[in-house]
Amino acid sequence: MPTLRIALAQLNVTVGDLDGNRRLIAQAIRRAQAWLVDLVVVPELAVCGYPPEDLLLKPQFIEANRQVVDQLCPLTRGIVAVVGCVERDEDGALHNAAAVLADGRRVTTYWKQYLPNYGVFDEKRYFTPGTAPCILNINGARVGMTICEDLWETQPCHTLARMGAQLVINLSASPYSAGKLRVRERVFAQRAREHRLAVASCNLVGGQDELVFDGASLFINARGRVLIHGVQFRDDLVVMDLALTPEHRPRSWRGQGTSVPHRHADRPALPKQQRPTLSRLEEVYEALTLGVQDYTRKNGFSAVVIGLSGGIDSALTACLAVDALGAEHVMGVVMPSRFSSKGTQDDARQLAKNVGIEMQEIAIEPMFTAYLETLAPLFRGRVTDVTEQNIQARIRGNVLMALSNKFGWLVLTTGNKSELATGYCTLYGDMAGGFAVIKDVPKMLVYELAAYRNERGPGRPIPRSVIERVPTAELAPNQTDQDTLPPYDVLDRIITAYVEEDRSVQEILRTQRLSPDVVQRVTRMIDRAEYKRRQGSPGIKITPRAFGKDRRMPITNRYHQNS
Amino acid sequence: MPTLRIALAQLNVTVGDLDGNRRLIAQAIRRAQAWLVDLVVVPELAVCGYPPEDLLLKPQFIEANRQVVDQLCPLTRGIVAVVGCVERDEDGALHNAAAVLADGRRVTTYWKQYLPNYGVFDEKRYFTPGTAPCILNINGARVGMTICEDLWETQPCHTLARMGAQLVINLSASPYSAGKLRVRERVFAQRAREHRLAVASCNLVGGQDELVFDGASLFINARGRVLIHGVQFRDDLVVMDLALTPEHRPRSWRGQGTSVPHRHADRPALPKQQRPTLSRLEEVYEALTLGVQDYTRKNGFSAVVIGLSGGIDSALTACLAVDALGAEHVMGVVMPSRFSSKGTQDDARQLAKNVGIEMQEIAIEPMFTAYLETLAPLFRGRVTDVTEQNIQARIRGNVLMALSNKFGWLVLTTGNKSELATGYCTLYGDMAGGFAVIKDVPKMLVYELAAYRNERGPGRPIPRSVIERVPTAELAPNQTDQDTLPPYDVLDRIITAYVEEDRSVQEILRTQRLSPDVVQRVTRMIDRAEYKRRQGSPGIKITPRAFGKDRRMPITNRYHQNS
Repeated sequence: MPTLRIALAQLNVTVGDLDGNRRLIAQAIRRAQAWLVDLVVVPELAVCGYPPEDLLLKPQFIEANRQVVDQLCPLTRGIVAVVGCVERDEDGALHNAAAVLADGRRVTTYWKQYLPNYGVFDEKRYFTPGTAPCILNINGARVGMTICEDLWETQPCHTLARMGAQLVINLSASPYSAGKLRVRERVFAQRAREHRLAVASCNLVGGQDELVFDGASLFINARGRVLIHGVQFRDDLVVMDLALTPEHRPRSWRGQGTSVPHRHADRPALPKQQRPTLSRLEEVYEALTLGVQDYTRKNGFSAVVIGLSGGIDSALTACLAVDALGAEHVMGVVMPSRFSSKGTQDDARQLAKNVGIEMQEIAIEPMFTAYLETLAPLFRGRVTDVTEQNIQARIRGNVLMALSNKFGWLVLTTGNKSELATGYCTLYGDMAGGFAVIKDVPKMLVYELAAYRNERGPGRPIPRSVIERVPTAELAPNQTDQDTLPPYDVLDRIITAYVEEDRSVQEILRTQRLSPDVVQRVTRMIDRAEYKRRQGSPGIKITPRAFGKDRRMPITNRYHQNS
Repeated sequence: MPTLRIALAQLNVTVGDLDGNRRLIAQAIRRAQAWLVDLVVVPELAVCGYPPEDLLLKPQFIEANRQVVDQLCPLTRGIVAVVGCVERDEDGALHNAAAVLADGRRVTTYWKQYLPNYGVFDEKRYFTPGTAPCILNINGARVGMTICEDLWETQPCHTLARMGAQLVINLSASPYSAGKLRVRERVFAQRAREHRLAVASCNLVGGQDELVFDGASLFINARGRVLIHGVQFRDDLVVMDLALTPEHRPRSWRGQGTSVPHRHADRPALPKQQRPTLSRLEEVYEALTLGVQDYTRKNGFSAVVIGLSGGIDSALTACLAVDALGAEHVMGVVMPSRFSSKGTQDDARQLAKNVGIEMQEIAIEPMFTAYLETLAPLFRGRVTDVTEQNIQARIRGNVLMALSNKFGWLVLTTGNKSELATGYCTLYGDMAGGFAVIKDVPKMLVYELAAYRNERGPGRPIPRSVIERVPTAELAPNQTDQDTLPPYDVLDRIITAYVEEDRSVQEILRTQRLSPDVVQRVTRMIDRAEYKRRQGSPGIKITPRAFGKDRRMPITNRYHQNS
């Protein structure tokens, strides 16, 4: 009964940082060696980061990635390291590959067979699928290779099982959306049970533009039981001894596969390990924190600036930024106008105080007056409308960008998914900024996350009055969001059905008790706001379908389905 | 020797406008019937428009598209109509399809075999490739079917020729880039010669977000001679009698294919037809004109507004807008600051006068002063830098957007590709607007197009001083573009090599006499400006690789190759 000691090194690599990624992988190999591990696995495309997008079209990038693999080779004395990288074949085609390095040489390479090309994925734009299964013989254990999507499909495991594999390893770059860990556990456990194969899946961790990878690498036994998962949203080295009972007698084992030299007979037992599983809200909160932390850090910013309105969106964004970066790296700006109430301004100040950030106060009235007076001759005879509201929002955007330009701070925008869906936001105004932290968080979930953060501590940073106030943009007298939008619980249900589930208006009306007028009006608003979203900043995907790369709608589009 | 009368109906359909597209296709069928045509072909996905993007994920959209095909069926008395549409197969998979309608019924459907998934294309995101060739027997003629990419590959024609096809028809949605017609002629003529097949390819026409389709549908005889092309950049019905000599004796003709009922023995001869071929600059100018016209029209705007700086970019943009929409639908705005020279302001006024557009003058000084005074306490002790420049650009952006909001005008931005490549432009400032007309036009080509427009007439709208002035943003005293950028001829060569051809720094230095410092600096600027481009407005692709869907770079990206 062979026993393998396996390390899953869930690393937070950075796209394009070939040197930095090489160092992280080398460090993981050294740490695995210190544990006398047989086999160490790093995530999919760990060498170049995921997704590298059109960097893959640069021949010099592919060559540099190859050199990194060469440099890692000599480090693998007494260990097998499986390293995600790009490989160019003899015909010039690119493959999403797993290089197997052992005892200082490159033993073999596996090419991913199933290339996802839906949702946020564009792998068929770059890669050619592999067709050959790959099995490693490590000290009598037969280890099948898969990369991410290969394990979500049934065929590769089926083939590997027929070839006698006892264990399937998997290199993943599986992006987070709420509840994704449970989905992975279910699917991978099913693969394990179907073929009596143990599964060891190493997932990427870290933020990359719109995506957050949550780590949570998985060891699953051949009965489909989850043995352990790696830490969620943090780098981790998960080490396990897997006793590979050949419960399933392979029909066609003919000794195929690549033999890998191997030692380590007697080694001290591993300590008992336990990683907590986060709750639904913890999970989303941690995803957002990591997303803003990594976007800021990986893009070379050391501090961020946030416009504080006294509303719940900017309050939550400030909490996330402080938890991600530390209060000393966050600057709050309160920008009152003639329509700001004392309540909201006091709340903004209180919030800043509660989270311990520095705060500036910049009244927009002088600029607003200058615009109104300058434009008065042109606007004569026209009624006051959304124009004047947008001018205020754009002054605030301009002020925040001026601070960004002068002090090098990254502007975080504070708009939520419900606003962005309906276009209830101002292009170049409150949409102005480098990173939109909660752009994929529907308003009702903003409330839940705010309550969660207050309960969890430290402190109860978000004032009760912020949570209880009727939502308002404060861009016109006595304005509330519900002058324009239906109640947020109704709105969010429509957004989920229409955007995330592609339900038709009829279907929505069939399954939910909603007014046909409201559903028609909201879905039209969603269609029409595409031009705004196209110019919005990137932000963190946390739902099954985020705006951005995940949902690619034409701007010029006359389709709107009648109810 | 069978003779077929074929009509290629290059239509300007609109994405999602199923009713409107149905009317256009019906009209084309009626016009072809009036010419006693045997076979009328419309472009790829003419029913839903191209590219429909994620509309294809909506089941109700696919169903509505199917209904349009059903509605077209009864119109095909005495004619064969080949209609580009989406088809869902029994397993639920989508196909990029060509429905063959004849004498009131649907005879067969062909499914596209080669799905482009590179550049601006994402067809593997949506469609499953077909595997079956399709040949129609029309009055003794054997007509093979292809859709766009199928004709760029060699296999489909090879198969069709072996099956005895004499003619290959092709439904295309082939986007324009400069010189594309010549490329199509060369590739399709080669297909024709390889297999002694006549080729009749119907291409889409019109603007769709970042793409312009140029029409120029092609008839090519079996010797590879181009017989005629359709009008470039306009809708057209190109009718030809093709005498199909079986020059190539098929080896395996066993009568496969679909027989289609057919009449029209004696019909009057067609008039002699001739369509001019546009020169290099005419072609680009027409592409830009059509692009701005269709973006404006198809998005429901009737007028546009442009900030006129007195520079060549805004002058060219104004000419394009006037030629596209008519002077009465274009508004110019001059927005002088303390750094504006009399020369540029006079030129802006002269330009407006020359093209006959209304002009407003809005000094930005009051707003600029208000920002500076408001921010003074925060900026105390800091040197004046790009911050103050960006504030001015963003005031102009805010003013233009206020006019857009108040009067319903679409803001056209005026930045060129050289600026956008290097980030020599202000996010939410001069980049603020709905459509970036010349965003893919390098600066040197801007000069060529300006000279072309002046020569072509009507009038010589662009003042000589605009063309001869040293380029300047006028955001600081005595500023010129070349304080920051290398000369534009050098810059544009680097952009072409680095962006459009994916050359490495070393390759650029090997093939061009340029300073390593300059190449390093410019390529770094290009890499670093990705975050700006991501929030830029859409604009018209005219080069082999435009920024936007055509070039998908990560923002978070630490890769920069050393020289």
